[in-house]
Amino acid sequence: MPGLSCEPLTPTAFLERSARVFGDRIAVIDGDRRCTYRELYQRCRRLAGVLVSAGATAGSRVAVLAPNTGVLLEAHYGVPLAGAVLVTLNIRQSPEELAYIVEHSGASVLLYDYELGDAARQLEGLVSTRLRLVESNGPSREYEELLAGAPPVATPVEDELSVLSINYTSGTTGKPKGVMYHHRAAYLQSIAMAWHAGLAPESVFLWTLPMFHGHGWCFTWAVTAAGGTHLCLRKVVPADIWRLMREEGVTHLCAAPTVLTMLAYHPAAEVDPPPRPIQVCTGGGPPSPALLRRLADLHVDVAHMYGMTESHGPIALCEWRPEWDALPLERRAQLKARQGVETITAQPMRVLAADGRDVASDGKAVGEVAIRGNSLMLGYYKDPAATERAAPDGWFRTGDLGVMHPDGYVEISDRAKDIIISGGENIASVEVENAVATHPAVRQAAVIAAPDEKWGEVPEAYVELKDDHTVTEEELIHHVRGLLAHFKAPRRIVFGPLPTTSTGKVQKFLLRDKAWTGTEKRVH
Amino acid sequence: MPGLSCEPLTPTAFLERSARVFGDRIAVIDGDRRCTYRELYQRCRRLAGVLVSAGATAGSRVAVLAPNTGVLLEAHYGVPLAGAVLVTLNIRQSPEELAYIVEHSGASVLLYDYELGDAARQLEGLVSTRLRLVESNGPSREYEELLAGAPPVATPVEDELSVLSINYTSGTTGKPKGVMYHHRAAYLQSIAMAWHAGLAPESVFLWTLPMFHGHGWCFTWAVTAAGGTHLCLRKVVPADIWRLMREEGVTHLCAAPTVLTMLAYHPAAEVDPPPRPIQVCTGGGPPSPALLRRLADLHVDVAHMYGMTESHGPIALCEWRPEWDALPLERRAQLKARQGVETITAQPMRVLAADGRDVASDGKAVGEVAIRGNSLMLGYYKDPAATERAAPDGWFRTGDLGVMHPDGYVEISDRAKDIIISGGENIASVEVENAVATHPAVRQAAVIAAPDEKWGEVPEAYVELKDDHTVTEEELIHHVRGLLAHFKAPRRIVFGPLPTTSTGKVQKFLLRDKAWTGTEKRVH
Repeated sequence: MPGLSCEPLTPTAFLERSARVFGDRIAVIDGDRRCTYRELYQRCRRLAGVLVSAGATAGSRVAVLAPNTGVLLEAHYGVPLAGAVLVTLNIRQSPEELAYIVEHSGASVLLYDYELGDAARQLEGLVSTRLRLVESNGPSREYEELLAGAPPVATPVEDELSVLSINYTSGTTGKPKGVMYHHRAAYLQSIAMAWHAGLAPESVFLWTLPMFHGHGWCFTWAVTAAGGTHLCLRKVVPADIWRLMREEGVTHLCAAPTVLTMLAYHPAAEVDPPPRPIQVCTGGGPPSPALLRRLADLHVDVAHMYGMTESHGPIALCEWRPEWDALPLERRAQLKARQGVETITAQPMRVLAADGRDVASDGKAVGEVAIRGNSLMLGYYKDPAATERAAPDGWFRTGDLGVMHPDGYVEISDRAKDIIISGGENIASVEVENAVATHPAVRQAAVIAAPDEKWGEVPEAYVELKDDHTVTEEELIHHVRGLLAHFKAPRRIVFGPLPTTSTGKVQKFLLRDKAWTGTEKRVH
Repeated sequence: MPGLSCEPLTPTAFLERSARVFGDRIAVIDGDRRCTYRELYQRCRRLAGVLVSAGATAGSRVAVLAPNTGVLLEAHYGVPLAGAVLVTLNIRQSPEELAYIVEHSGASVLLYDYELGDAARQLEGLVSTRLRLVESNGPSREYEELLAGAPPVATPVEDELSVLSINYTSGTTGKPKGVMYHHRAAYLQSIAMAWHAGLAPESVFLWTLPMFHGHGWCFTWAVTAAGGTHLCLRKVVPADIWRLMREEGVTHLCAAPTVLTMLAYHPAAEVDPPPRPIQVCTGGGPPSPALLRRLADLHVDVAHMYGMTESHGPIALCEWRPEWDALPLERRAQLKARQGVETITAQPMRVLAADGRDVASDGKAVGEVAIRGNSLMLGYYKDPAATERAAPDGWFRTGDLGVMHPDGYVEISDRAKDIIISGGENIASVEVENAVATHPAVRQAAVIAAPDEKWGEVPEAYVELKDDHTVTEEELIHHVRGLLAHFKAPRRIVFGPLPTTSTGKVQKFLLRDKAWTGTEKRVH
């Protein structure tokens, strides 16, 4: 009786449960449409039926090109219920990039949102393989009609370590890599997210974070596990978000600090506060103390999380200790800016020196953050060499530099490539960014290494000011010098909006590329 | 790199995490002693060191005979950290019963509480095997001295499906059976309990439920996973419990309905209410609507759970739907008395007819509740035949009779052996009990089948009255006839205290044995 006590773990089980337990509750709000958990489960099984009827077999890849719609959410259940593998595409990428990903994944079906019809057809023209296109949400009603005509299908998972999805990294250098997610890890990660975010049946989760970004850190399944409501959002428009918070009683959202900055300083934030307290999970960079202070004033609670595509989203969070509540806001913000400790289902992080040994837990010795365990990917699709390189000794190297504090919390000082080496001294760009951001006129700042004949590299700051605020380059440099060692202060400041990715991360590599154009190749 | 993305699941991982994340927080309060998570982890690793030094090897059995002390909690980590298997003994059992269990399990070490020294030594004299006795908490300070002299040990788990513990069933008929728990199931069950009980670092969990009862439904590990405080309790004394609720800010406890009844009607309940809202998880029998009403008045929230030793404790709960909050109290109590749906990590329950097929989901058709999946035991220790009998088709038969409601919630009507067959009609004893308990003078009632020449069986009630209340047999029978079909009303009522097990379940088999003495063997 091997099956008596061991059922494969899969995140689709959460939908099956919520359909029965919370069948009449609203699972999805997508524009004017509302769908109960019973209906969602029925639609997802019919999507599985569509795919199986179209020839999908165990392990077939199905690609989806869509903003955060109910259909994209349905694909998170319908594709695995067909026994197929989900490939969610980043809608900000070019047709050429997407064509590479679709071909590399070997997807045979492309489900796309009607707003992205042009991109989908361009992509179709670029791939050499045969691709079945299915349009959703458009006047053609193709997706709805296919659903209506399909039998419900729910293929059981036989191996919890089988591939659930392939998520392609954004690939700032080289070709995107396909991160293979599996059922067991996605299941455990979903539970961890539901637990740490405090999701419940009463929760209303606003989809500001793209679902194509590591399946929205697995909240695509976590919200369902809790029986909460998915509130879809096609575009991150601050005025819309503040309206939805009020109208729909939003309780949770996830967003990068840049998106939070945009929200926090938007005029709509000053209107009536939302009716319910809001729990925000942030990641992709540490929120600046200034931003944390601002959000505290708006009664928005922030959980700071840390992770990457390779770890099914957050593998760590700045787990809050109740005794910290009594500390002054400034100190609380400092503590919260740390990446923290592993989630409840993950394994402890390590900070490794170049020789593979742990650095001292003194909050000073810098090393590379390394992770492993139940949140980790199976590996890179069709690229065992890259997998091996990323985890040479079984510990996945994140590329993030950080320290281990005496209390066991990790703090990232910088991306390996974001460190500035000036006259032989290391400068953490994040430290300079936080100093710049303390100036009352600054909305957000990005600091990079710029070439310098004498020092090799020097810090250069890119700064976005708050509306109706001004400050000169000289004043701001002076401000930073009052806070940090002089060699850490930016040599030059460029004012203007910062370039960000689809997920709201500042694209420092664009700033770096510009700064280094015409200069010899950087040594690191 | 098979290890990169798959670490064995084990509940000892929660202690390792909480020791790092919540190191300075109080993990255990045991009388006058308080111990932080850092200290608890250190003590547990030293206990593992003691066991390994004493010769424990992978899979060795270590028995513990203790009330709910800090030492018993430590055994839940120290024994598996030694790679050994935990056997927690029921302190209410006789030395003869305990000797059978110790011999059957093959335990080589018996860790006992000094208050149970006589029982431990008697037991030692009864077993034919060699048993190393270790006393804890007594003037000998044996346990503390062994700990102080031992090296810290933490043996990694290699196979998450390996045996973590053996829990012996109370065995109302025949010999006790050894239920084998495993690391994976206990891990998932702990997460489910932490999730459904809403445990958090601020939680203070009062140990009213014996830890030797399925490891306190795995709350031994769940409370640690959340970073909450274990508040130990040697004896269930209502006045002490109400005092602790106030003095220590208790937030959670688990107890059978009988214990809750004792608490709810104790004079101390009327004094100042506890400073924090209390979440109670109950199981082992449905709480009567009258009890639920009383607890609601005391601002105690009750989660009704359902499970058994074989399922690592609760496999189901009456998952509360927010929309039910608006219903009248009477209806809410009816809904909450249902056993409900599977927990977040379990598989759906079924209600099976004798032919192994599902009964209709109409809330009327009675069948046997059957379970399987990630919460189930590996099997009965050294008894594959009993395992096979219990789950003939891979579905474990619980011995509980129930119905499947149209909304997917299961409601137990009775234990298979608690059904009363009177003149060919089935009478659910729980229905009669609930009717009896609606009388204002009744504290609790147990109804059994008594022999009857004409009808075969008739309902007989055993009733415990509230202090300073009286009612006659005739009045009470009249009261029930006003609520139920006349043939369901008790023919006879016996007033007096009810016999209960160590876990607070009414021992109906004792009442039945008495009622049937001198009568021919019952047919079912």
